[in-house]
Amino acid sequence: MRALRWDGTRLRLARDLPDPAPGSGEALVRVRLAGICRTDLEITRGYLGFRGTPGHEWVGHVIAADDPTLVGARVVGEINLACGRCPACATGLRRHCPNRRVLGIVGADGALADFLVLPAANLHRVPESVTDTDAVFTEPLAAAFEILEQVPDVGGGRALVLGDGKLGLLVAQVLASAGAQVTLAGHHPAKLACARRLGIHTGAARPGADLVVDATGSAGGLPAALALVRPRGTVVMKTTVAAPHQLDLASVVVNEVTVVGSRCGPFSPALEALAGRRVSVAPLVDAVYPLDDAVAAFTRAATPETLKVLVDTGAA
Amino acid sequence: MRALRWDGTRLRLARDLPDPAPGSGEALVRVRLAGICRTDLEITRGYLGFRGTPGHEWVGHVIAADDPTLVGARVVGEINLACGRCPACATGLRRHCPNRRVLGIVGADGALADFLVLPAANLHRVPESVTDTDAVFTEPLAAAFEILEQVPDVGGGRALVLGDGKLGLLVAQVLASAGAQVTLAGHHPAKLACARRLGIHTGAARPGADLVVDATGSAGGLPAALALVRPRGTVVMKTTVAAPHQLDLASVVVNEVTVVGSRCGPFSPALEALAGRRVSVAPLVDAVYPLDDAVAAFTRAATPETLKVLVDTGAA
Repeated sequence: MRALRWDGTRLRLARDLPDPAPGSGEALVRVRLAGICRTDLEITRGYLGFRGTPGHEWVGHVIAADDPTLVGARVVGEINLACGRCPACATGLRRHCPNRRVLGIVGADGALADFLVLPAANLHRVPESVTDTDAVFTEPLAAAFEILEQVPDVGGGRALVLGDGKLGLLVAQVLASAGAQVTLAGHHPAKLACARRLGIHTGAARPGADLVVDATGSAGGLPAALALVRPRGTVVMKTTVAAPHQLDLASVVVNEVTVVGSRCGPFSPALEALAGRRVSVAPLVDAVYPLDDAVAAFTRAATPETLKVLVDTGAA
Repeated sequence: MRALRWDGTRLRLARDLPDPAPGSGEALVRVRLAGICRTDLEITRGYLGFRGTPGHEWVGHVIAADDPTLVGARVVGEINLACGRCPACATGLRRHCPNRRVLGIVGADGALADFLVLPAANLHRVPESVTDTDAVFTEPLAAAFEILEQVPDVGGGRALVLGDGKLGLLVAQVLASAGAQVTLAGHHPAKLACARRLGIHTGAARPGADLVVDATGSAGGLPAALALVRPRGTVVMKTTVAAPHQLDLASVVVNEVTVVGSRCGPFSPALEALAGRRVSVAPLVDAVYPLDDAVAAFTRAATPETLKVLVDTGAA
């Protein structure tokens, strides 16, 4: 099969890899579409030392599985591969299993390939009314829905989303769908224009927000969020800045702010929102490349004004 | 009257100050006992640029007030003096009023004096069964009870309190009273011994706690707490480290930790817990000095193995 490979130095498309072989409990999936995420770009800058096939946003069809009713199903899949045996797994925190592998990110080949293998338990059937293009957004949309699991009562409040990237646009829609009064603040005219076409209010970040979501992807996001949230308000951190940096968190204590770290999320509400058209994701797609041009797709995804780049394997 | 004064350079006891005059809505209080808090020590190191009479932990009797039924009452008082006119005050966040003065900390003379003035609305009557010594702890105990307001469902969980100072010992008792399995970790043998006499389990800080409270008062407290909390657990920050310092918060996002800043708290549950003997505070008192020796009391309070130092005005 074909697969995009990162060897720590360069990306290249391999054309002659053996098809992956599913083990017990695993499913073999024919990938149809895959998305390129900021994390994938970070991987090519050394993030987590990953080697292999990147890609964790995808939709495809099940080719082989223990459960014959699953074969042929159109599916998306949760990306954390838990060990199933540790205390975290025993208490339902499988997404936080300390031994986890993560599809296309940690110790497991990902979706920028003709085929992938994933535990069948990780798969979710895609409702018929959801297009392939929409379904590719299930994983990042789930990360946006995670905020509703973590922060109760966002409805009616004033929410501020910092960052006009893909995640910011998804978060803004999810918060609005939950009844929040949302403003999105960013610095990229084309991305802000896209947000406005999606019905998202864009504008200057004014202080006093009940909820501020840092989706900037930069170290300046958290200090900005802390300056904009009201006393006793909530800041959601979606930005991972791996390097230690200078921070003054005195305002967290003085203003009694709650800071919530937020990473992956639940697939079911994301699929339901796509099926119910409560969020709109297709306008975020800037380009679709064939798998043969996946290296060029990465280059395009890294340009500043680009939102989502998809890769099409050509599978029917 | 007498009052301990901080002029930005030195502490001295003034003996010839005029008694404060209460304005409309304010009460004049004869202070009986006052406590010295870590914040008071920080003030003498320049914290917040305060000048005047420090002290915000106290118990006393009302000498004069608009409401005649209040005169003679034994009271404690909330320390935030809100403006009452801003949006924060209008939404019930009076403790977070941006124009607030704070008794003995920001723009208002405090309790290390024969008399103090406070809005009558800030006062709470002390139940008869609560001794003066216990009542002085209402304010710091309220700060510990704030955690129960901010973090739901601490009962049954594994809680770790970092820091064996006064606040740590109060927090540990409050969490235990709410049903948590509490371990207190610290580095001061005498303080840890006091904790054990109070029935608090002390020991090494083991990772995986549901809740970690940073009451260390040092910049190392938050990184330690983040290393000890379980994924999706909660860290309560009681430590204000005013200077920016190097921090790596990636684990907050990856482990989806909730970090809650926590400052002042509600007086009513603190007074109820003292009246119901659900917490024990008198063993925290290491020394009681007369007001005439308040400067020496500060020196004693600053020694590492000392818990609480009280100042007695000699009022009946």
